[in-house]
Amino acid sequence: MTTQTNSAGSGPTDESTGEARLRGYSMHKDDFAKRLSRIEGQVRGIQRMIEDDTYCIDVLTQVSAATKALHAVALGLLDGHLRHCVSHAVQAGDEDATERMVTEASKAIERLLKA
Amino acid sequence: MTTQTNSAGSGPTDESTGEARLRGYSMHKDDFAKRLSRIEGQVRGIQRMIEDDTYCIDVLTQVSAATKALHAVALGLLDGHLRHCVSHAVQAGDEDATERMVTEASKAIERLLKA
Amino acid sequence: MTTQTNSAGSGPTDESTGEARLRGYSMHKDDFAKRLSRIEGQVRGIQRMIEDDTYCIDVLTQVSAATKALHAVALGLLDGHLRHCVSHAVQAGDEDATERMVTEASKAIERLLKA
Amino acid sequence: MTTQTNSAGSGPTDESTGEARLRGYSMHKDDFAKRLSRIEGQVRGIQRMIEDDTYCIDVLTQVSAATKALHAVALGLLDGHLRHCVSHAVQAGDEDATERMVTEASKAIERLLKA
Repeated sequence: MTTQTNSAGSGPTDESTGEARLRGYSMHKDDFAKRLSRIEGQVRGIQRMIEDDTYCIDVLTQVSAATKALHAVALGLLDGHLRHCVSHAVQAGDEDATERMVTEASKAIERLLKA
Repeated sequence: MTTQTNSAGSGPTDESTGEARLRGYSMHKDDFAKRLSRIEGQVRGIQRMIEDDTYCIDVLTQVSAATKALHAVALGLLDGHLRHCVSHAVQAGDEDATERMVTEASKAIERLLKA
Repeated sequence: MTTQTNSAGSGPTDESTGEARLRGYSMHKDDFAKRLSRIEGQVRGIQRMIEDDTYCIDVLTQVSAATKALHAVALGLLDGHLRHCVSHAVQAGDEDATERMVTEASKAIERLLKA
Repeated sequence: MTTQTNSAGSGPTDESTGEARLRGYSMHKDDFAKRLSRIEGQVRGIQRMIEDDTYCIDVLTQVSAATKALHAVALGLLDGHLRHCVSHAVQAGDEDATERMVTEASKAIERLLKA
């Protein structure tokens, strides 16, 4: 399992200066942290349901709820990316970065839709 | 967050006898437990990525991966439900239980699709 | 484009007797016909929107509406399949047909989810 | 059925000058027209399958194929919207239009995901 990837696509604010980099979600880090911690709890709850031989359909309901919560996180990340990273690249007149970021966003939407 | 629900729909094998109830996933409990524990790790990984100011698109890639893994769990649970619970109700000639279980399965598929 | 496929999986009611075969949707053929004709109209409407240079987001709204309508058709077909074809195979005590049909249904749900 | 909507959100190039408006898909109109005409054919094919009592699972396979094709159209429209309309609004320094378009795009992605 690789949960930590390092892509080349790190955006125009990633200046390798050692400073904290600004991301599309930077202004809502606490909110995202809280939501993900709740999803982690949901997944643990599903594990317990399996251990306790809970009725299949009730387990499925919780799996759908966790999926829905992950989708909401994804939509929030995408919105921030478009609102900040892409806009920043356009404003900076950086056509290469803009082109790359829009392509990345489109591919991310596609991956999400086919997940 | 309520991860533990107790629906009325508990299947024809739920005889309240004190014995462990058979579920559609009973023969693959270890497999489901392992998969869910891996998904829990993926969600924790995403939390770390947010903490570390990882590039939005890389976070999104992991969110899609976790969503895909949850979908696979859901498909496995549905398959087991159809293969065992629904078939069992049909074989037992229990038309009410069959009707109820198919309706539940259809609604579960719908929830999954709209999650 | 191949819209007419003939799979081996044609269900226990397909006796090659020349009689009309019973399908999971047989009792709702008119309803499905009406819905599909409406979806056809929606797709034609989207073509006109493109011709008329309609704003991207408004076109996207209609594409989502048509997708939603197709999903509803799929959910209806799946429900009928589980309710009639699979149940029929179980009742007939045909384990091979049951096994095959449940596997087909699971794969159909997966295809739908990843479409 | 309303396939022709006219939202207020018509983008910065919509100057009511009588000239053809530029849309995110303008450079690929023929491609989108061709794809939609193929999808229309797929939907007609599904109607014939229902008339001909085709096996449920085979009908479902075609419904998934049409859904997939509609999703591809949606992804293409979204990509064009981000690449042209949103970028254009940012370049024009029109913060209101940028804000509105990103919000519209996010909502369109959400509708698509929940369709």
